[in-house]
Amino acid sequence: MAFESKIRPITWENGKSKMLDQTVIPYEYKYVEITSGDEMFNAIRNMIVRGAPAIGIGGAQGIVLYAQEGANKFSNVADFKSWLLEKADYMATSRPTAVNLMWACDEQKKVINNSVSDIQGLIKELTDKAIDIELDDINRCKAMGDYGAEVVPKGARILTHCNAGALATGGYGTALGVVRSAFAKDNTVQVFADETRPRQQGARLTTFELAMDGIPVTLITDGMCSYFMKKGMIDMVVVGADRIAANGDTANKIGTYTVAIAAKYHNIPFYVAAPLSTIDISIATGDEIPIEERAREEVTHINGKIICSDKVNVINPGFDVTPHDLIAGIITEKGILRPDYNKSIAEVFNRS
Amino acid sequence: MAFESKIRPITWENGKSKMLDQTVIPYEYKYVEITSGDEMFNAIRNMIVRGAPAIGIGGAQGIVLYAQEGANKFSNVADFKSWLLEKADYMATSRPTAVNLMWACDEQKKVINNSVSDIQGLIKELTDKAIDIELDDINRCKAMGDYGAEVVPKGARILTHCNAGALATGGYGTALGVVRSAFAKDNTVQVFADETRPRQQGARLTTFELAMDGIPVTLITDGMCSYFMKKGMIDMVVVGADRIAANGDTANKIGTYTVAIAAKYHNIPFYVAAPLSTIDISIATGDEIPIEERAREEVTHINGKIICSDKVNVINPGFDVTPHDLIAGIITEKGILRPDYNKSIAEVFNRS
Repeated sequence: MAFESKIRPITWENGKSKMLDQTVIPYEYKYVEITSGDEMFNAIRNMIVRGAPAIGIGGAQGIVLYAQEGANKFSNVADFKSWLLEKADYMATSRPTAVNLMWACDEQKKVINNSVSDIQGLIKELTDKAIDIELDDINRCKAMGDYGAEVVPKGARILTHCNAGALATGGYGTALGVVRSAFAKDNTVQVFADETRPRQQGARLTTFELAMDGIPVTLITDGMCSYFMKKGMIDMVVVGADRIAANGDTANKIGTYTVAIAAKYHNIPFYVAAPLSTIDISIATGDEIPIEERAREEVTHINGKIICSDKVNVINPGFDVTPHDLIAGIITEKGILRPDYNKSIAEVFNRS
Repeated sequence: MAFESKIRPITWENGKSKMLDQTVIPYEYKYVEITSGDEMFNAIRNMIVRGAPAIGIGGAQGIVLYAQEGANKFSNVADFKSWLLEKADYMATSRPTAVNLMWACDEQKKVINNSVSDIQGLIKELTDKAIDIELDDINRCKAMGDYGAEVVPKGARILTHCNAGALATGGYGTALGVVRSAFAKDNTVQVFADETRPRQQGARLTTFELAMDGIPVTLITDGMCSYFMKKGMIDMVVVGADRIAANGDTANKIGTYTVAIAAKYHNIPFYVAAPLSTIDISIATGDEIPIEERAREEVTHINGKIICSDKVNVINPGFDVTPHDLIAGIITEKGILRPDYNKSIAEVFNRS
């Protein structure tokens, strides 16, 4: 059963990308128009749009924007395609960890390589594909939500980290998609949201979107999870993912791994919710996932104000890897994958 | 070998308490004068002075301030004493979790009960005791630091949570006292400081005091500890304590328990550094330690600005309890206590 979310973070309108500026939530709720490929690259890098599935959509749209720009520069389709394939590769580098971005750029590269149309025809095909990726994402999230809801106990208090919500996807959410589907069946379900420093996506985005959709949410700081687990106040953990290796090791927002360890210590099931496009079967383990290092100011400043000595060192990894043996299940649009993940992931890819 | 810290957060001068205002560090470094018992009560409650040993010193001084006020109201010593004992009990309630506060107020109550002086003589005795508690605390921290330094490996990267530093004590620190003593022997030792949301004592205070004393410090967010542990970048954890039960269960700033679980998972030794006045042998286990709940704004606001939806629920426990089996040792001024803590704690109290 699907719950209707009010939130559509990124969509395609009148030949442009229209996206919610996620850097200003919860202070402002405003859409910005992205009209060029380079603008999209920067919007992804600067996290105006963020969340693994959403930046996949953004990447696909960005390639359409490049195509629209290139249309004036080329008369020859082959030259146009070769230029655009380079732009697609460039777009895929706007952020390094989430594999959905690379996946979506690859989908557009397939469109480019397979197209037999002229330049305008190819632009139309790329536009259709970008819209497909967006709408498919919502459907995938709803399917995932429904599978996930089956493992949510009655009245569950669900801990989540970062924002794997409507804001991170086409509009329903991965981890919060599971919450939405569970809440549609049982409105006593509630969420505990980790603040998720440094960028506070849990505080800024997860509390915002759940409040908007009327789902009860309690904000906690990142260090508090174990306290509430020990008190018996957390029934399960569900998080999103940026990249999942063939063995189930899962990269997600920094801090996720700490929550997973705490969940294991308290025997609380820890689930990952992610579309199959998040699984990178080309890598054997999480050791091969590149971890983005971000600017020191994300740690040393909040809302533009320094919070520490200006003499500190900072290391700011954007993601960490949760080893597969801490994960109770990976909730996908094709069902819940269980250990042994090497086997269950290979199986679902063979079926797909 | 003792390292000389530049920081003296609370001292007694000209019949008044002089304290660093810890709510404005790192933006300002200013001393405030506390001239009445009620002012001290509020300074402790509002965390102008904070840290278990430091609020013990504050409590002892606050009782002197009450005594100075009461001197004008009473001519009879017995009436004065009975009034002052009530004020001492009240002072002990300014914060509920750290037992050093209750211990220091009890020390002053013993002075009151045992005194054979007149009112002015008693005030002199209470003043001497408050100064003793302050200076003894520095000596206890130095002794603790020297014991602790023995278990710090060469070039250690020491993770700490919150601020158990000079700022939390008479002026040397418990956990950071161990760091100072280790650094005095080996200046390749360095610190990883957890930010420690909600009040960010790690970011605001620990980075500030370590930078001031020239000890290298890397600031990390609370969720990052496991990431660095897995990378082999943390050699040990040392934290302070607000109250330790007879079995070694340790209440400390919220988030400590999460770090302890992560340390255990990575086989990294987790130490508590605290004076014996932090051990409450009257309680058998950590289950009996009262956990202060603090205002929702500490979670929802940073530097006066909201960081989340205003519709969220908040639960804001100020402390958590780390069970004794996650603790490698309790570093005290009488040596390092090891498991079984029921036995080692009883022994050190029988000797003291």
